[in-house]
Amino acid sequence: MSGEETVTAAVLVIGDEILSGRTPDRNINYIAAHMTSIGIRLREVRVVADDEREIVDAVNALRARYTYLITTGGIGPTHDDITADAIAKALGVPIDHDPRAVELLEAYFVRRGVTSTPARMRMARIPHGAELIANPVSVAPGFMIDNVIVLAGVPDVMQVMLDDVTARLRTGAKMLTETIKLSRPEGDVADLFAAHQQAFPDVAMGSYPSFADGRISTQLVLRSTDSEMLERARQGLMAQLNSRGMV
Amino acid sequence: MSGEETVTAAVLVIGDEILSGRTPDRNINYIAAHMTSIGIRLREVRVVADDEREIVDAVNALRARYTYLITTGGIGPTHDDITADAIAKALGVPIDHDPRAVELLEAYFVRRGVTSTPARMRMARIPHGAELIANPVSVAPGFMIDNVIVLAGVPDVMQVMLDDVTARLRTGAKMLTETIKLSRPEGDVADLFAAHQQAFPDVAMGSYPSFADGRISTQLVLRSTDSEMLERARQGLMAQLNSRGMV
Repeated sequence: MSGEETVTAAVLVIGDEILSGRTPDRNINYIAAHMTSIGIRLREVRVVADDEREIVDAVNALRARYTYLITTGGIGPTHDDITADAIAKALGVPIDHDPRAVELLEAYFVRRGVTSTPARMRMARIPHGAELIANPVSVAPGFMIDNVIVLAGVPDVMQVMLDDVTARLRTGAKMLTETIKLSRPEGDVADLFAAHQQAFPDVAMGSYPSFADGRISTQLVLRSTDSEMLERARQGLMAQLNSRGMV
Repeated sequence: MSGEETVTAAVLVIGDEILSGRTPDRNINYIAAHMTSIGIRLREVRVVADDEREIVDAVNALRARYTYLITTGGIGPTHDDITADAIAKALGVPIDHDPRAVELLEAYFVRRGVTSTPARMRMARIPHGAELIANPVSVAPGFMIDNVIVLAGVPDVMQVMLDDVTARLRTGAKMLTETIKLSRPEGDVADLFAAHQQAFPDVAMGSYPSFADGRISTQLVLRSTDSEMLERARQGLMAQLNSRGMV
């Protein structure tokens, strides 16, 4: 399923607790790295509240712009979990208890010896036309409808759902990366680096400083889907840095 | 400067390295918690690439919707640091070397014994009409123009800049929080909690599960700017949980 087209994605993180600062999000970085590894370009991330209007507006904006939209959060059993309903509203489809999800959840509740309450069965409410995404951790499924992939917010659960859905995604050419580490501040190499970017306009070039262990260092990162061009860019940069005694 | 109005904010994280998954963002959570502590409601976060069009569009959308927009990233010395120019473009103002910033940077370079190069002096380019935000860590200033607050991406630097600019911000009524911890899954209390939300529609109520140490637990979080209403909601919820033997 991989090819040379550019496949893009956005992530929509849904959760009051992220916006209040109570909970640091861990899903953005995990999904971003995963997308890079399978050749999908993550282009935008948004974080919105557990609010229907906010979710509907963001979903409709993002699903139109990118190949895929991945949402996290808000598919649990409590009243603040409104994502499934908001997705159905955004896509203009009905939503009710999906027999496949009901069966999975009821079997799980029996195994665990807990009561099947209306609140718990909210997790079986799936928009019409969606495919389920398996959740081996806690059973309540995610789902995919059109190009919208709806995952849990709890990181461990989100990660297994993402693994499950990956086989269904179109992927593009994988972005390759080369990193050159320097024990110097970015300012020392900025002019050289800018000129090198001009020489290789199709290789994305970024410079990232750090101050770890009290020492200033810089990582120069080159990215391209073209391995041959990337290697030429890397060699050319190394030659210039060497000639200035910077590596 | 605090009052009873609702003061809102959005955060715009600018950086290819966040979208590629190379670097986990640490600023969203820090800023979110800081906003909560000073009574500003963070309503939305976006992450975009180091791309002028993307930055301009996001800046214009967000600065119109909220009291403040805080951006992080892209104000360093390298060619991929394009935030200051993009902000000037979005606001339709000129940008060039600001004498105040030039003075700060030149003095810093002299102290450090490094050359003042064109690349380094890019960090003195500030949109016309902006006020500077001090950077005691690495000197290159942030800035604030209209309701747009432009900070560094490096977390340590961002945090000191945020501290510096806080005194200039209007703040609102502080959101107060009460948390009740249960050693039970969310599903056990979801119906009770939903009914309690109906009883106290002006108190935000959210339920957050966790699976730490192999044990399922849930935190019920109540939030309100009205301390008296919050306490009544908390007491009412505790009474119900007690009567069902859940705490």
